[in-house]
Amino acid sequence: MKILILNGPNLNMLGRREPGIYGSRSFDDFLPELRARFAGRADIEYAQSNHEGAIIDTLQLTDADAVVLNAGAYTHTSLAIADCIAAIKVPVTEVHISNVMAREPIRHTSLIAPVCRGTIAGFGLHSYTLAVEAAILACK
Amino acid sequence: MKILILNGPNLNMLGRREPGIYGSRSFDDFLPELRARFAGRADIEYAQSNHEGAIIDTLQLTDADAVVLNAGAYTHTSLAIADCIAAIKVPVTEVHISNVMAREPIRHTSLIAPVCRGTIAGFGLHSYTLAVEAAILACK
Amino acid sequence: MKILILNGPNLNMLGRREPGIYGSRSFDDFLPELRARFAGRADIEYAQSNHEGAIIDTLQLTDADAVVLNAGAYTHTSLAIADCIAAIKVPVTEVHISNVMAREPIRHTSLIAPVCRGTIAGFGLHSYTLAVEAAILACK
Amino acid sequence: MKILILNGPNLNMLGRREPGIYGSRSFDDFLPELRARFAGRADIEYAQSNHEGAIIDTLQLTDADAVVLNAGAYTHTSLAIADCIAAIKVPVTEVHISNVMAREPIRHTSLIAPVCRGTIAGFGLHSYTLAVEAAILACK
Amino acid sequence: MKILILNGPNLNMLGRREPGIYGSRSFDDFLPELRARFAGRADIEYAQSNHEGAIIDTLQLTDADAVVLNAGAYTHTSLAIADCIAAIKVPVTEVHISNVMAREPIRHTSLIAPVCRGTIAGFGLHSYTLAVEAAILACK
Amino acid sequence: MKILILNGPNLNMLGRREPGIYGSRSFDDFLPELRARFAGRADIEYAQSNHEGAIIDTLQLTDADAVVLNAGAYTHTSLAIADCIAAIKVPVTEVHISNVMAREPIRHTSLIAPVCRGTIAGFGLHSYTLAVEAAILACK
Amino acid sequence: MKILILNGPNLNMLGRREPGIYGSRSFDDFLPELRARFAGRADIEYAQSNHEGAIIDTLQLTDADAVVLNAGAYTHTSLAIADCIAAIKVPVTEVHISNVMAREPIRHTSLIAPVCRGTIAGFGLHSYTLAVEAAILACK
Amino acid sequence: MKILILNGPNLNMLGRREPGIYGSRSFDDFLPELRARFAGRADIEYAQSNHEGAIIDTLQLTDADAVVLNAGAYTHTSLAIADCIAAIKVPVTEVHISNVMAREPIRHTSLIAPVCRGTIAGFGLHSYTLAVEAAILACK
Amino acid sequence: MKILILNGPNLNMLGRREPGIYGSRSFDDFLPELRARFAGRADIEYAQSNHEGAIIDTLQLTDADAVVLNAGAYTHTSLAIADCIAAIKVPVTEVHISNVMAREPIRHTSLIAPVCRGTIAGFGLHSYTLAVEAAILACK
Amino acid sequence: MKILILNGPNLNMLGRREPGIYGSRSFDDFLPELRARFAGRADIEYAQSNHEGAIIDTLQLTDADAVVLNAGAYTHTSLAIADCIAAIKVPVTEVHISNVMAREPIRHTSLIAPVCRGTIAGFGLHSYTLAVEAAILACK
Amino acid sequence: MKILILNGPNLNMLGRREPGIYGSRSFDDFLPELRARFAGRADIEYAQSNHEGAIIDTLQLTDADAVVLNAGAYTHTSLAIADCIAAIKVPVTEVHISNVMAREPIRHTSLIAPVCRGTIAGFGLHSYTLAVEAAILACK
Amino acid sequence: MKILILNGPNLNMLGRREPGIYGSRSFDDFLPELRARFAGRADIEYAQSNHEGAIIDTLQLTDADAVVLNAGAYTHTSLAIADCIAAIKVPVTEVHISNVMAREPIRHTSLIAPVCRGTIAGFGLHSYTLAVEAAILACK
Repeated sequence: MKILILNGPNLNMLGRREPGIYGSRSFDDFLPELRARFAGRADIEYAQSNHEGAIIDTLQLTDADAVVLNAGAYTHTSLAIADCIAAIKVPVTEVHISNVMAREPIRHTSLIAPVCRGTIAGFGLHSYTLAVEAAILACK
Repeated sequence: MKILILNGPNLNMLGRREPGIYGSRSFDDFLPELRARFAGRADIEYAQSNHEGAIIDTLQLTDADAVVLNAGAYTHTSLAIADCIAAIKVPVTEVHISNVMAREPIRHTSLIAPVCRGTIAGFGLHSYTLAVEAAILACK
Repeated sequence: MKILILNGPNLNMLGRREPGIYGSRSFDDFLPELRARFAGRADIEYAQSNHEGAIIDTLQLTDADAVVLNAGAYTHTSLAIADCIAAIKVPVTEVHISNVMAREPIRHTSLIAPVCRGTIAGFGLHSYTLAVEAAILACK
Repeated sequence: MKILILNGPNLNMLGRREPGIYGSRSFDDFLPELRARFAGRADIEYAQSNHEGAIIDTLQLTDADAVVLNAGAYTHTSLAIADCIAAIKVPVTEVHISNVMAREPIRHTSLIAPVCRGTIAGFGLHSYTLAVEAAILACK
Repeated sequence: MKILILNGPNLNMLGRREPGIYGSRSFDDFLPELRARFAGRADIEYAQSNHEGAIIDTLQLTDADAVVLNAGAYTHTSLAIADCIAAIKVPVTEVHISNVMAREPIRHTSLIAPVCRGTIAGFGLHSYTLAVEAAILACK
Repeated sequence: MKILILNGPNLNMLGRREPGIYGSRSFDDFLPELRARFAGRADIEYAQSNHEGAIIDTLQLTDADAVVLNAGAYTHTSLAIADCIAAIKVPVTEVHISNVMAREPIRHTSLIAPVCRGTIAGFGLHSYTLAVEAAILACK
Repeated sequence: MKILILNGPNLNMLGRREPGIYGSRSFDDFLPELRARFAGRADIEYAQSNHEGAIIDTLQLTDADAVVLNAGAYTHTSLAIADCIAAIKVPVTEVHISNVMAREPIRHTSLIAPVCRGTIAGFGLHSYTLAVEAAILACK
Repeated sequence: MKILILNGPNLNMLGRREPGIYGSRSFDDFLPELRARFAGRADIEYAQSNHEGAIIDTLQLTDADAVVLNAGAYTHTSLAIADCIAAIKVPVTEVHISNVMAREPIRHTSLIAPVCRGTIAGFGLHSYTLAVEAAILACK
Repeated sequence: MKILILNGPNLNMLGRREPGIYGSRSFDDFLPELRARFAGRADIEYAQSNHEGAIIDTLQLTDADAVVLNAGAYTHTSLAIADCIAAIKVPVTEVHISNVMAREPIRHTSLIAPVCRGTIAGFGLHSYTLAVEAAILACK
Repeated sequence: MKILILNGPNLNMLGRREPGIYGSRSFDDFLPELRARFAGRADIEYAQSNHEGAIIDTLQLTDADAVVLNAGAYTHTSLAIADCIAAIKVPVTEVHISNVMAREPIRHTSLIAPVCRGTIAGFGLHSYTLAVEAAILACK
Repeated sequence: MKILILNGPNLNMLGRREPGIYGSRSFDDFLPELRARFAGRADIEYAQSNHEGAIIDTLQLTDADAVVLNAGAYTHTSLAIADCIAAIKVPVTEVHISNVMAREPIRHTSLIAPVCRGTIAGFGLHSYTLAVEAAILACK
Repeated sequence: MKILILNGPNLNMLGRREPGIYGSRSFDDFLPELRARFAGRADIEYAQSNHEGAIIDTLQLTDADAVVLNAGAYTHTSLAIADCIAAIKVPVTEVHISNVMAREPIRHTSLIAPVCRGTIAGFGLHSYTLAVEAAILACK
């Protein structure tokens, strides 16, 4: 089973970016641990971009069986990514590191949530672990 | 580790209630499977009530290490449950069986999300499995 | 044919409560007259509660063929009762003694109306008579 | 006792108009049955117009003892009809065939409801039967 | 193929009415040219009224194969015309001479658009030409 | 100088209609007094209709030098009348008998005010006297 | 009969202030003409202030029989002046030189209108003439 | 004189609940001091519940001369408690420990305030002392 | 202990101003009674102004230990007074004679409440008595 | 005459993307037919991008005489594309395949419409045909 | 070149007022430094008032070539000052010490910005330095 | 000291783009003059992009001591750029050539302002000069 983890804008700065909100660990540091945890159960690909269009390109072209998407700020402003998720066949799980509902009102609205399979938010980097688990559970 | 799963109004009707949205399996049927999955890792208690006040009473009195709360419709209308979650010390994870963001607008606002640890929504009964996993991950 | 009339909060105070709006006759005084009118056509059960949870419990457990529900103030605030009506199989008719649309704006929104069969409002205690008639008409 | 049933725009198309919402029976087919049901209790006059102004003219000139008004779409847009109902002395009951509260948001607001005696909605053609009954009950 | 062009309020004043917005040519002057362009492809009927009710009457009674409707200001205020379009079987194309989205906010909402086949706006009198073309294209 | 006074819906019921708001004198009773007051200064024509379309027809066709328009409820709902006022060349003064700003919120918005010359409201039947005076003053 | 004309902020700049909106004549130039017109019918006092508090002080202390108030921008922001008008016994007429409803949205709301006797707007300096006339008419 | 102090949801956790907002003293600890202060002037009864329905039951049945009500979160969500206060005859004073207007927007709206005699908020536990004083002052 | 009672616009008209809302007793009549009640416990200074700026000047310059402020209509419109309260060091208690929450919506929002210590509203002139008491309680 | 058809995000998936809304034909399949139809009348260039910035780059650099733009989801979220259309000199026609006004509310607002020449929506792939026709008509 | 710096309410408390937001230096301390910086390039006058009316009076009477205005809280509530800026001929630059867009929502709306030449906010006392520079740059 | 001036979408068209709003001078023409002005005080780098993602990339990678950012239309729609500004350490000053507050409402909201150091708007190309000055002042 192939799973694509796709991170949106500014998530390449994890660890250095507002650590009070996002924690002090980079995604590059976390990824091997995540892959190890799911070794034998899922093949985890990873991509990141600050470009809304590149996120759409990647989603359109992926051959993964499931996508774990942290669209970052585009979660709240990109109808184009939402349209892309509705257009492709692979199921997408929305993840957030922070508890977005506890932050500013603009982050309470997710344009992509209605077309995702489900949402996991607020568990720090564990949100990704849970999302991969969700993708595997959903395939059984 | 003791985990309390607390279900709110109408969740005692799972399996019989709008199966297109909530699935056709009752919680009583699902619970043993869930307990079996986490045997040795977590002790799972279960309670359900249609009464907002009883949910608050239960949350105030629980001695669990973590709570998995599906507050049902009270998610969107009960500031009193939100105040209770803020008042107690045990961490609470919000779960939903359906993808609430894909439903009517009144279900897009969660009064309890800002005081919960995190949210898991849209994975059917697997939402509970993931939430228990989240509670265990968070304790390590 | 069995019909349950279910009254919500403060309707036990009918006759004593703001008589300019709700009239000066209690429901206990009215009920025998209503039963007499429909004798031989419908069996009328009656319940009242100030508790949102108890109204849900009652709706879940009723074996009536139709429900006439005056949810009082919960009409405007209880998504949980609305979810319950959607979850059960028995048809529910919403009634109001006063013309709610002629009162404060908060009373112009009914959370339960979309999941009820229909609504009757503004005819004083006759609203109940008409609702029972509606239930019988709908069964023919 | 003379009762005027007054239908607004597009109700002359009943039976042919969106039968999933309004049913497949025309009002002309229903009217004799309604008159028969109330024979000896009420004299039922009937009028229909697609013109807001004609509805106002008719309401101003009627000598009926009560009016049963299905203002159709004008329910939601005509303050002029509302002003007319407030200006005349005869009591008016608002009826709707469909459950308007279960449809699009624009149909949730009734400009005429606050000046009507009461509202009956959602019972198909029975809504008219109940409204005539309501008019008779209210006169006793 | 018979096509009805139906113009709403104040469109009988084209050429004299706010020429900066609507141009300086009357519809009577334009119509022969339009008919000539589509000679042999479509038979074009024309009607205009300032009365909302008369527009509904005309739509209900037309035997055209397609309608090109410029409802003028009623576009933004008439739910009754929208209900009529939903009730009849003939497809309706919404046209506007001016670019309504570039004008006052009240003109940005069209009550009739959701029940029309499509919308053409902003091309001056060419909007009618394009709408007739659209009707023909749609029939092939 | 010729002045057209044009009254909208339900103003034919003045004197009988909600006298607490509109006074107890009919317009027919008031008109001769008004004409006498302006004898030699202005020729006053009078028309009334409950039909939005008829008000537009009348405004399009009038040869008066100025119009005094009490559009009644259409003040607040008719963009078509507003478009008509913008389309014709004769200046229009908006009048109201009651102080509309002291009534329900829906009466605080005038769709026609922006295209009228000015507004006079709240002086009972004197509002018409002042509006005729305004028309004469404006012509000097 | 004594009438106080009270002008609010920036009206001392009439003639010099945005002449496209307010005209090019100063109030000092206009006042003698106005007094001449009403000579023998009304005694006209005049005051102006840029201070909200001073306008309130003046209204509380006036011994005039009627007030003509152009509150300028305070029309739209001063609940304190509105409270003052409600508190005093002398009737107040609201006037505006420009057609405020044809300007920016913030000028469409008048906090003082509901407590004034009536409103006259859009007739340039004639608005004052009409307001004095209104005060005299109202006293007969 | 008998005064009922009625506390709503989560106020049984005072002293342990968000002490930064609500202080670190429990109500049980405060109550004797309050009773002592008013000894001889007022008899103070005390009740608390997390159940909206139980608060209504208690208000309906009380024989106190005045009620001091801290409805907690229900202040902002319970129209049913507001209806109950309007229905009973005993005067109710609304109290809050914290300055609710300085907190989240949802706490700025009180559904019960319009039917209470008055409101006291922001003085910590002294709010109760002042409310009892208010009840006594109001009876003189 | 020195306490400044500061009254805002139109409160100099107490007793004469809308007695149905504000009562029929003037503040000058009430003040000696208030001072007598607190003789030996607090020194009460008094000031009133209709000028927003003067209220700010007074607050900036006071040497009182606590302020009791009835800002009248400025409560709802003056961010400048709110900024002043935040800028000075003396604690301010907001008082209202009437129950502002039971009045028009514009009075439901207090700009100054978030920066005051607390609020007391609805107890007539007793609101001042309670506020002085509150100031003394808070100092102990 | 050279015409650029520019498609925005996800329109490269036409035929595979939500065929119930967008139809089952790809744009590559349609383009030759469109070019054939306008052979000799217009030269049609085609470009597509999922990148908002690339759409702006293309618009800035085009040497076409007219642009037909289906901005897809960016229609509703991109003020930058709107600014670009206002900045360039070539006229732009907005097209949509589906009837956007019949879909979710977020699609009812077009940021680009006010700066386009006109809009054509709802005619499937024919919308492009009509838009090219519109461009040619507008040049005559 | 003469430049008037005009400060609004509570800015006389700079240095003592919420130093976390406004800094700990008084304007009197800063002014000589500012004058020194621009010696020979601009003559700087200074005025401050807590009175909205006095700010208007000052703006109307100034003979400066440019005004630097920090209207404090009146920025967000005073349409009268905005009208004054539009009425006078001297260009006005809006300044703020704090970054108002990063504070409460009420501070995000500036009534005066649309009629000012430009805005400078967030640079502490440097905002004044930059605004004087802006005035000089603009005159070249 | 190194300062990066970063321009967003369509600012490469300065001089050719809506000169009534943005002026008729290109940025390339202005830049040498700006560099000359600050020669010896600051090293000015310059970049421009129409791509939201490229602006984020550039901000993340810059080694400048301060950034002057004119995000153009992205100011009002890009939460992703705002998140980037919050994530990086270099202080950012927001600039606008036009007075955005005097334009359409969508331009009154800046998503990036709350995370910038300050804002300078409305001074044409001088806005950049002032922003560089601001950056230098802030470093002293």
